[in-house]
Amino acid sequence: MRKGDTIIFQSPPSVLSFAAVGGKKESEGPLAQQFDQLFPDSRCGEESWEKAECTITRRCLTLALQKANLSAGALDGVFAGDLQFQCTASAYAMRAFDAPYLGLYGACSTMAEGVGLAACLTAGGHMQRAAAMTSSHFCAAERQFRTPLDYGGKRTPTAQWTVTGAGAAILCAGCRPPYVRAVTFGRVRDLDVTDINNMGAAMAPAACETLLRYFADTGESPEAFDAVYTGDLGQIGSTLLQELLQREGLTLPCHRDCGLLIYDCETQDVQAGGSGAGCSASVLCCEVLPALREGRMKRVLFLSTGALMSQTTFLQGESIPGIAHLIELSAEPGLPPKEGL
Amino acid sequence: MRKGDTIIFQSPPSVLSFAAVGGKKESEGPLAQQFDQLFPDSRCGEESWEKAECTITRRCLTLALQKANLSAGALDGVFAGDLQFQCTASAYAMRAFDAPYLGLYGACSTMAEGVGLAACLTAGGHMQRAAAMTSSHFCAAERQFRTPLDYGGKRTPTAQWTVTGAGAAILCAGCRPPYVRAVTFGRVRDLDVTDINNMGAAMAPAACETLLRYFADTGESPEAFDAVYTGDLGQIGSTLLQELLQREGLTLPCHRDCGLLIYDCETQDVQAGGSGAGCSASVLCCEVLPALREGRMKRVLFLSTGALMSQTTFLQGESIPGIAHLIELSAEPGLPPKEGL
Repeated sequence: MRKGDTIIFQSPPSVLSFAAVGGKKESEGPLAQQFDQLFPDSRCGEESWEKAECTITRRCLTLALQKANLSAGALDGVFAGDLQFQCTASAYAMRAFDAPYLGLYGACSTMAEGVGLAACLTAGGHMQRAAAMTSSHFCAAERQFRTPLDYGGKRTPTAQWTVTGAGAAILCAGCRPPYVRAVTFGRVRDLDVTDINNMGAAMAPAACETLLRYFADTGESPEAFDAVYTGDLGQIGSTLLQELLQREGLTLPCHRDCGLLIYDCETQDVQAGGSGAGCSASVLCCEVLPALREGRMKRVLFLSTGALMSQTTFLQGESIPGIAHLIELSAEPGLPPKEGL
Repeated sequence: MRKGDTIIFQSPPSVLSFAAVGGKKESEGPLAQQFDQLFPDSRCGEESWEKAECTITRRCLTLALQKANLSAGALDGVFAGDLQFQCTASAYAMRAFDAPYLGLYGACSTMAEGVGLAACLTAGGHMQRAAAMTSSHFCAAERQFRTPLDYGGKRTPTAQWTVTGAGAAILCAGCRPPYVRAVTFGRVRDLDVTDINNMGAAMAPAACETLLRYFADTGESPEAFDAVYTGDLGQIGSTLLQELLQREGLTLPCHRDCGLLIYDCETQDVQAGGSGAGCSASVLCCEVLPALREGRMKRVLFLSTGALMSQTTFLQGESIPGIAHLIELSAEPGLPPKEGL
């Protein structure tokens, strides 16, 4: 069923299995104990950071498959993408999995886009099992989007630290919690932010837009959720999101940003927080999905937020378009009965 | 219904509207008269080739909407991607369309991936109308993947000429021809081709794999189709595809490659043919879909073929993974009755 921009599943698909993999900095952060695997070496034994990212994402999907006792052949589709030029971390990882591959590019919004599409395809009966995965790598991203690491450029207070990590989730027809109850695919929003070191500001308007549409489409209110997660707005973007929502008469009492959960901003020298496609993906798979499965949370909204610029558009003086995709996750397949009814 | 890797629609969705836009070289090729618009200037009045590509793809979706008398607000989703770093031609074009955006990266396989996903989402009732679009630009691609144009590098005989152009198609529940009857999403295949100037060879194994799966899944034979289109294998890749298929006991009597249709290889100095995401997209929208709508063809298979490397993986000595997505298109929503039944 579709209401406005929001797809509401009559028979919500399940997230059958999930895994999260991180790197060294993530192993020093507040969520370290929750990752399925942490690589202490930023090269993961490979000869380049790009290949290391490929190893991380490959390892992550392998773990998600193992946890469900499945082989790659059991997947009817893998929705994946990443931040590397031409999404090569994902494409090259897929050489190791003999399953149909649907390449995505949503920048840091990729995980919610992938889970949303996997939910639609499994709910629609087009795929029996579909995976969504994405990754990022601090060193690979930094030299691609900003400056070579060796240059030692000073980071601004608004900058965010790209997560070295990956998340993978496998969806199927509804059989066990957590369930994907609804999806709102986002629209591009560009409020003319041009600072490549302030991605939170560039993405906040898109997150606001998607949230407003979800609440308008469904008639839900933020109080119905244990938490509303955003991908990687960081400190600046999170504050801006609340400001933008307040202008529309909405507050998020239960807002949590994955970029602020994965690192300790006080002690880890990550400036405004974490970012990268692997940020929301790994937090989804090591924090959000486990809590829903174990019943520690009942119902959450999860948004991945993406900044859609490239180094080329940045150097050509373009502003940064943002996008945010939303998935509604629940420990129950159906809505709880409303009070008083 | 799913058989193996192939999704077969019980109620096949329609391609409601479509448009193709090209550049100067395309205006000199055999299909020139069939494009909806041709830009004589490779900058399209913009200050960079990248922005020109954005203009081309924006123009193309605008035309597809106009031909169906729709506004962008009528679209529940736009599946789009391109070859620029971080798919910026599509993302920046989407600033002009207020509709949900689902970014894809499938390199030159993007059009079939997008049409396939749009078909699943409309057939599944998740979207009422969904668009698929993609583009490429010779000048933007050449300097990004190979060498700056000013360098004047000599092109090898196996090289292909990136199409400057775009295609856009709008899908909805079945109402008029052509119909998308089935989709086979492809698997990554890498036979260790490392020559960035021989993409046809890198992609042929993936095209072979997808075709073999489609025929095995459905029990169909190539003779049932007026034509089997591939995206941009060019001369080298097309020959290799036939060789690979013959090893499996299959011949394609009706094979046509979009990269060989869009240019005259004898006179247009394009080496082994056309390529680029805009190649299969524009040929689909100016040649294949019109013929099906007008009844000049009854049933075709259409594959877009993608080479998933980047300049980074190339310089790091990696081989080139290929992928091919297939859509089955028909002038009729149902199968014709088999002879003798």
